[in-house]
Amino acid sequence: MDLKQYIATVPDYPEPGVMFRDISPLMADGEAYRYATDQLVDYAKSKNVEMIAGPEARGFIVGCPVAYELGVGFAPARKQGKLPRATVKATYDLEYGKESALYLHKDAIKPGQRVLVMDDLLATGGTIGATIKLVEDLGGIVVGTAFIIELKDLHGRDKIKGYDTFSLMEY
Amino acid sequence: MDLKQYIATVPDYPEPGVMFRDISPLMADGEAYRYATDQLVDYAKSKNVEMIAGPEARGFIVGCPVAYELGVGFAPARKQGKLPRATVKATYDLEYGKESALYLHKDAIKPGQRVLVMDDLLATGGTIGATIKLVEDLGGIVVGTAFIIELKDLHGRDKIKGYDTFSLMEY
Repeated sequence: MDLKQYIATVPDYPEPGVMFRDISPLMADGEAYRYATDQLVDYAKSKNVEMIAGPEARGFIVGCPVAYELGVGFAPARKQGKLPRATVKATYDLEYGKESALYLHKDAIKPGQRVLVMDDLLATGGTIGATIKLVEDLGGIVVGTAFIIELKDLHGRDKIKGYDTFSLMEY
Repeated sequence: MDLKQYIATVPDYPEPGVMFRDISPLMADGEAYRYATDQLVDYAKSKNVEMIAGPEARGFIVGCPVAYELGVGFAPARKQGKLPRATVKATYDLEYGKESALYLHKDAIKPGQRVLVMDDLLATGGTIGATIKLVEDLGGIVVGTAFIIELKDLHGRDKIKGYDTFSLMEY
C-alpha cells in the first residue's frame, strides 16, 4: 500500500513557506490507518516496549492504537493546564519560532520501563525531544522513536541522535 | 476488573467545586486500557460502525484504538486552527461557563457513513453534542455515543436524547 496517497499536502500552513503534511486522510481510511498502525506495532514489538508515550494531540492518534494492540499503557504528554495532578515539565522550540512546553504526570512512567515515543511527524525534533526528556526525567528508558512521516530537510534525527528512529515515509 | 480503581479523582480541578475524574491511571495500565477498550469495541461492533469520531484530545485516546481494532477510520474533531483544510464548525457551551468551538475537515465523514462518537467522559454533553452536529452536517449517521465515564449529575444524556449512549462507569 502506498501510504503517501493518503497524505494531504497543504502549502503555506500554518504560515507562508511551510508545506504541511496532513495525515487526516490516512486516518479517515480504515484500511490505511490499520496498515500504517500495524507497521508501527511491528517496530514496537521488536523493541520489547512496555509503555508508549506521545505528545498531544496527533501523537495520541498514532500511539494509542499501538499501545492497545501491544497491551501496554499510554502516557500522554500534554500542554500546560491539561494534566490535573503533579507533573514534570520540559520546554522546547517550535518549528515556527516560538517556545512551548510539554508535561507528563509524575506517575505516568515507572522507573526502568521500556518506552517507545511516538508522534505523527518528525520535523525539527523539538516536540519529540521534549517528550524523550520527560520520559527520562521519570526514569523511563527510551528504546525508540516512531513516526508516520519524517521531514528529512528539517534534520530532526540530528536532535534525537542516539535513539533508534523509525518512520513509515519520508518527504 | 473494577475500572474505577484506575480513575484518579482530583478535587477542585480545573476550578473550585469540580471533582475532576482523570482517566490517565487507566491509560497507564496496559491491562486496564485494553480491557476498557475491548468493551467499547464490542459496543461499536453491535452498531455496525463504519467510522469513529471524537473530540480532541482525550477523545483520540478513547476512540483511536477502537477504530484500529475495527479497521475503520477516525475523524478528529479539533479546536480552532488545528485542521489545515476546509472545515465545518460547531459551537458549544463548556462545563465551566465559557463558549468554545469544534471543527471537522469537510472530507472527514462520507455521507451515509455509520459513525460512533466517542470521548473519555460524558459531562454536560456540550462537547459531544457539537461533535454529533459536525458529523451530521457532513451527512454522517450517528449510530451511538460511547464514553469511559458518565457523570450522572450533569445530565449529559438529556442533551443527546435520541442517540444510543454507552458508558463503562458512572459517577
